[in-house]
Amino acid sequence: MTRVLSGSAVAKEIRAGVTAAAERLSAEGREPHLAVVVATADESTAAYVRSIGGAARKCGIRCSVVDLGPDATSIRIRSELEALSADPAVHGIILQTPLPPSADFDTLASAIDPAKDVDGANPLSLGLLAARLPAFAPATAEAVMVLLDHYEVPLSGANAVVVGRSTVVGKPAALLLLNRDATVSVCHRRTTDLAAHTLNADVVVVAAGQPGLLTGKHVGANTVVVDVGTNVEADGSLIGDVDFASVDGVAAALTPVPGGVGPVTTALLLQHTITSASR
Amino acid sequence: MTRVLSGSAVAKEIRAGVTAAAERLSAEGREPHLAVVVATADESTAAYVRSIGGAARKCGIRCSVVDLGPDATSIRIRSELEALSADPAVHGIILQTPLPPSADFDTLASAIDPAKDVDGANPLSLGLLAARLPAFAPATAEAVMVLLDHYEVPLSGANAVVVGRSTVVGKPAALLLLNRDATVSVCHRRTTDLAAHTLNADVVVVAAGQPGLLTGKHVGANTVVVDVGTNVEADGSLIGDVDFASVDGVAAALTPVPGGVGPVTTALLLQHTITSASR
Repeated sequence: MTRVLSGSAVAKEIRAGVTAAAERLSAEGREPHLAVVVATADESTAAYVRSIGGAARKCGIRCSVVDLGPDATSIRIRSELEALSADPAVHGIILQTPLPPSADFDTLASAIDPAKDVDGANPLSLGLLAARLPAFAPATAEAVMVLLDHYEVPLSGANAVVVGRSTVVGKPAALLLLNRDATVSVCHRRTTDLAAHTLNADVVVVAAGQPGLLTGKHVGANTVVVDVGTNVEADGSLIGDVDFASVDGVAAALTPVPGGVGPVTTALLLQHTITSASR
Repeated sequence: MTRVLSGSAVAKEIRAGVTAAAERLSAEGREPHLAVVVATADESTAAYVRSIGGAARKCGIRCSVVDLGPDATSIRIRSELEALSADPAVHGIILQTPLPPSADFDTLASAIDPAKDVDGANPLSLGLLAARLPAFAPATAEAVMVLLDHYEVPLSGANAVVVGRSTVVGKPAALLLLNRDATVSVCHRRTTDLAAHTLNADVVVVAAGQPGLLTGKHVGANTVVVDVGTNVEADGSLIGDVDFASVDGVAAALTPVPGGVGPVTTALLLQHTITSASR
């Protein structure tokens, strides 16, 4: 019997705290303000940004979308990030992907003031995380940890496998798990035998961007699976990296998509904005 | 038959390149200059710093040791690192450990200009490394890679295990191996069954600071073992983290201590100083 680890209730709890804090800050004349920089015409990205904006406003956080268009140059994007970093009325900055082909995300993200880097995109934030110094973790990677903690999954000494090694999810998730005393393995497209690593894992975090990558054959009865995948189907629906039907009934527990890591990630972006605005 | 992978010849080759470059730079009036900040009375540290100074001078690099004494405050250390960062005549800065108990290495290292951070100690350097952006890697972690490359150990798709998760060696070594397409597992003192991870590994990097930690029981016939340990014995001799006698004859290959990772590390610190002085 596989337990489904919903993120919706966890996210609701976080948003309640955010709403209370936003009210208090606004009463003090410090309305929390999140800015999202967009440079794409991609429709699913626009929908995602709208959902962040909606969630922010519901919690009493102002959300500005700075749409630079799909032809924005790196110089233009960087100067916008610098302006927002310098603006005392802005507390959180998100650089939304995808970017124009000529722009490099990690290079541009280094222009985000670490104090406002609510999605932990600046390489400095990642380095601080690795050194266990105060920094905002990428919200998706932190959402994985929040979910595991909420459902009381033991991490110290556990065997954790992260599938995917992106700078935004895989690497920071591995560092966060390592900071919590898990033994951590990072697998990716060059891994020769994925099942050999995942079958005996206590925790498997899948963040590869590949629908159906993890199946029931990859997991054991004690494995807790966290699905970070957010793949948009042709009909606009969202599916994860895990073949839910085949893992359900085999693994010990599994986060759904949608309704798992996603809502917690959005709630954490808002919580980080509150943290920044409260300083 | 276990192959012993000596670092001495590799280091000699690197130093030859450094010497030629230092001569050229000095002829142009830009004598390369490495500064080592020390804040301890520890005798083995003093010996290590003397050996760096000697190696630097032999290659034509000026080496200044700034000894702040074992009672130096964090403020004093930070201001020295800032002064050296601002000094155009200094090209490389090393913050030597151990530091006084009140001082935090990672926090202080963030005061080192990344352009002069020849031992990759600034958390920003680590973050840039994780994001695959240009930065100096910690010399010890890079020395592991240089040795593996020199002896043509295949890394893409290989199973690599790093034992130890320090900010200076374990984590950066894991990131460098990951950047080279190895499947990477990081083990540490909380790992429940070390042998289960190392027995089938193609590469094991041991950086735990614990003599005799890895034995013949932990490795297979195809395992290449890199010993990063530099433990000083009561008689002043240096031993690694690997029980050499027991691994010798079992593993495919093994780096010795001394004469393995150590000399390559020192040579890379000098090479990084040349890179910085050449800009």
